[in-house]
Amino acid sequence: MPNPQLNSNGELRHLLALNGLPKDILTYILDTASSFVSVSDREVKKVPLMRGKSVFNLFFENSTRTRTTFEIAAKRLSADVINLNIAASSTSKGESLLDTVDNLTAMSADMFVVRHAQSGAPFLIARHLNRHGLDHIHVVNAGDGRHAHPTQGLLDMYTIRHYKKDFTNLKVAIVGDVLHSRVARSDIHAMKTLGVPEIRVIGPTTLLAPAMKDMGIRMFNNMNEGLKDVDVVIMLRVQNERINGALLPSAQEFFKSYGLTPERLALAKPDAIVMHPGPMNRGVEIDSSVADGKQAVILSQVTYGIAVRMAVMSILAGN
Amino acid sequence: MPNPQLNSNGELRHLLALNGLPKDILTYILDTASSFVSVSDREVKKVPLMRGKSVFNLFFENSTRTRTTFEIAAKRLSADVINLNIAASSTSKGESLLDTVDNLTAMSADMFVVRHAQSGAPFLIARHLNRHGLDHIHVVNAGDGRHAHPTQGLLDMYTIRHYKKDFTNLKVAIVGDVLHSRVARSDIHAMKTLGVPEIRVIGPTTLLAPAMKDMGIRMFNNMNEGLKDVDVVIMLRVQNERINGALLPSAQEFFKSYGLTPERLALAKPDAIVMHPGPMNRGVEIDSSVADGKQAVILSQVTYGIAVRMAVMSILAGN
Amino acid sequence: MPNPQLNSNGELRHLLALNGLPKDILTYILDTASSFVSVSDREVKKVPLMRGKSVFNLFFENSTRTRTTFEIAAKRLSADVINLNIAASSTSKGESLLDTVDNLTAMSADMFVVRHAQSGAPFLIARHLNRHGLDHIHVVNAGDGRHAHPTQGLLDMYTIRHYKKDFTNLKVAIVGDVLHSRVARSDIHAMKTLGVPEIRVIGPTTLLAPAMKDMGIRMFNNMNEGLKDVDVVIMLRVQNERINGALLPSAQEFFKSYGLTPERLALAKPDAIVMHPGPMNRGVEIDSSVADGKQAVILSQVTYGIAVRMAVMSILAGN
Repeated sequence: MPNPQLNSNGELRHLLALNGLPKDILTYILDTASSFVSVSDREVKKVPLMRGKSVFNLFFENSTRTRTTFEIAAKRLSADVINLNIAASSTSKGESLLDTVDNLTAMSADMFVVRHAQSGAPFLIARHLNRHGLDHIHVVNAGDGRHAHPTQGLLDMYTIRHYKKDFTNLKVAIVGDVLHSRVARSDIHAMKTLGVPEIRVIGPTTLLAPAMKDMGIRMFNNMNEGLKDVDVVIMLRVQNERINGALLPSAQEFFKSYGLTPERLALAKPDAIVMHPGPMNRGVEIDSSVADGKQAVILSQVTYGIAVRMAVMSILAGN
Repeated sequence: MPNPQLNSNGELRHLLALNGLPKDILTYILDTASSFVSVSDREVKKVPLMRGKSVFNLFFENSTRTRTTFEIAAKRLSADVINLNIAASSTSKGESLLDTVDNLTAMSADMFVVRHAQSGAPFLIARHLNRHGLDHIHVVNAGDGRHAHPTQGLLDMYTIRHYKKDFTNLKVAIVGDVLHSRVARSDIHAMKTLGVPEIRVIGPTTLLAPAMKDMGIRMFNNMNEGLKDVDVVIMLRVQNERINGALLPSAQEFFKSYGLTPERLALAKPDAIVMHPGPMNRGVEIDSSVADGKQAVILSQVTYGIAVRMAVMSILAGN
Repeated sequence: MPNPQLNSNGELRHLLALNGLPKDILTYILDTASSFVSVSDREVKKVPLMRGKSVFNLFFENSTRTRTTFEIAAKRLSADVINLNIAASSTSKGESLLDTVDNLTAMSADMFVVRHAQSGAPFLIARHLNRHGLDHIHVVNAGDGRHAHPTQGLLDMYTIRHYKKDFTNLKVAIVGDVLHSRVARSDIHAMKTLGVPEIRVIGPTTLLAPAMKDMGIRMFNNMNEGLKDVDVVIMLRVQNERINGALLPSAQEFFKSYGLTPERLALAKPDAIVMHPGPMNRGVEIDSSVADGKQAVILSQVTYGIAVRMAVMSILAGN
């Protein structure tokens, strides 16, 4: 089965997951993003690359934050953006996912930005479009279940490259609920492709995915050991709904074992950067003094996230 | 009482219902729509006909689907679109419908697209504007109660004309819950005006409107008889909330008697087209093999729906 | 502590409250607004003053009506507008107000229009931006708790100036629930600054703020006495949730004592104007014949409200 993300010329057709994307495509997206970083600093923050294109934000799962980043990116590319909160829409009338897509396709959609609680939903849509030869319509996965969050992965790579220049000599630790994290999954795939030599995951055994060992990832239950000499610390968000559940101790207990404090951060390299996909739970996975400290690059991630999304959308629209 | 939809020159001032619109106006809308079909195929899907105009989507009843079609149409005409979900707004603070309209008028609204659960609400607004001499503000009915859904009626006529060329030699069957359907009502009025010689409605007696007999419409309880030799089949959506109620048997029972299957469709003319206003209940009123079959023109309806709405909005804004 | 609303040149940096704004700034806003009134009458209702700027409507409290006025104003200035209904967003995931602001700042926001149930929230944001040297990002208070609603105050001043020309010879009465009204507070501060010599508040003792006496405001429990010879009557909205509560009698009782009827209005000057911030409760605080009568300037307030908001936004963006 061919990779549904690439067209027959090997160009990016949809962005569904970072798994299976060749290094030159990842690098091309990051390079393109760097040309867009300056657009957001201009007096007039707009380029006409997608003027007259119709971008649909199909959010089957509520996420104002992610939806906003795509909406801004699309508007700065001059696209027309239509937000569809699908919980409140036709699917509640029993229309199937693909009927919804067919309808919007018939309205001459150019791009679907899809967020869905179910892993694989954006793939389903992309395969459906491919099967019907609708080559001019593109899908961007804005997070599907536990599976993937590729634009988050890309903006994390952009941030790491910006601060560390070279991927091939880095130690990177991902901390927290790795098991349920689509961010962790997307980051790991991208880092593998881009040549990060040492990837570590840190968390309680119940929140680590045993299969990762086979991917050459080092697993740590002890945070102090896991952070030793790393160049990059990626903190994951603890899902509130999981706290006090079967897999997670209380917020206080979690912080005691896995919260990133200044003392723990001191175990990493002195110039280590601290990342977080947001929104942060201060005092649960990260101490405020670290979140606001000078090693944190969390707000840079947000800034680069707009540029990376502009890059992805404009590349797709151009292919 | 003069027709509130027409100005003193007999031009379209509001689009409220297809009942009472002369044939030349219907034809003019369809002709204008055909010039807009190609806009949605362009690289830049925009024309500047409504640049700087303020279009308000006043949705007193939730309908993401219909709201989206108007939003797209308005944006492709370069209008500024403001979506107001009025359930969550001032009327919940006790403000009357007409106070809301007066307020938006004072904000220099150019057009109201109105969806309301109550039949007649868009007429009330239009008459209010007319009475106050606000000739430059236009109302489009986007569905009011059981009464009318004129843009759906127009897009259905566009679709029929596209595939059948001539209205004056057609047999058209409308199937399902005709009694509660604003789509059926709008279609019937338009077909009468455009000269369709034979209109049939098919459904259980409880869901047909006896008064239709007086309009020369043929009524059928037996679907096989009703479909015989028709050129066009318009399936209506079965409202989920009505299933298992007093008037409707279970979904399975309904499908057995009135679901459109390939076998039943074979009773119509070989080149008959199948239409549906969407969203479809597959397996309730229509079999998937018909919905996705080559006689179905359901997605073309959606495409033409954008063009028809662009036509209506630009004609109103120009008058 | 310096006034967070002004920059070091004494120019408007944020619009948070009318309290503390010098007369020349209020007058400058009103003068600028008057140049925008005509924009909304044009064929193309747009000026390019904020093209490519990103305006975020941060509504932590639902208000379709106010949000709409800012959205229209921003779109007529050609800004990109992003609506964030924050109840449904990250803060529900436990993100703090300032983390949300930092994130949007990192997305290159140019302006925040903030509505919040808590008094002081827009100040908190403005001070945070000031402290971090983010001089290019501006905050407009769209209503915070009981504290202030400065654009409403400004549009009220615009309306009074339009009809009465000169502030310095006026008697103005504010009627109703003054105690809980941010509109009353903003109006009073503006009128004080602009030189209105006689300000009266009328209402039951339980709904008047005793501290106002110290500001030189005349307090009346008897409406007939309070309205005598005034030039301007500003009716306040009775909050439905307060009716039948501890502080407010029934709607009927309130109307009997403080509803503005034609008879009562006759006690004011013959050319007195009647204002109301909307939405009106007809038959509670105002009789319909007054609301729709020729002394009412309530819809003019709405019209001027768009112009005033365009003025505020464009002045902030220009400074």
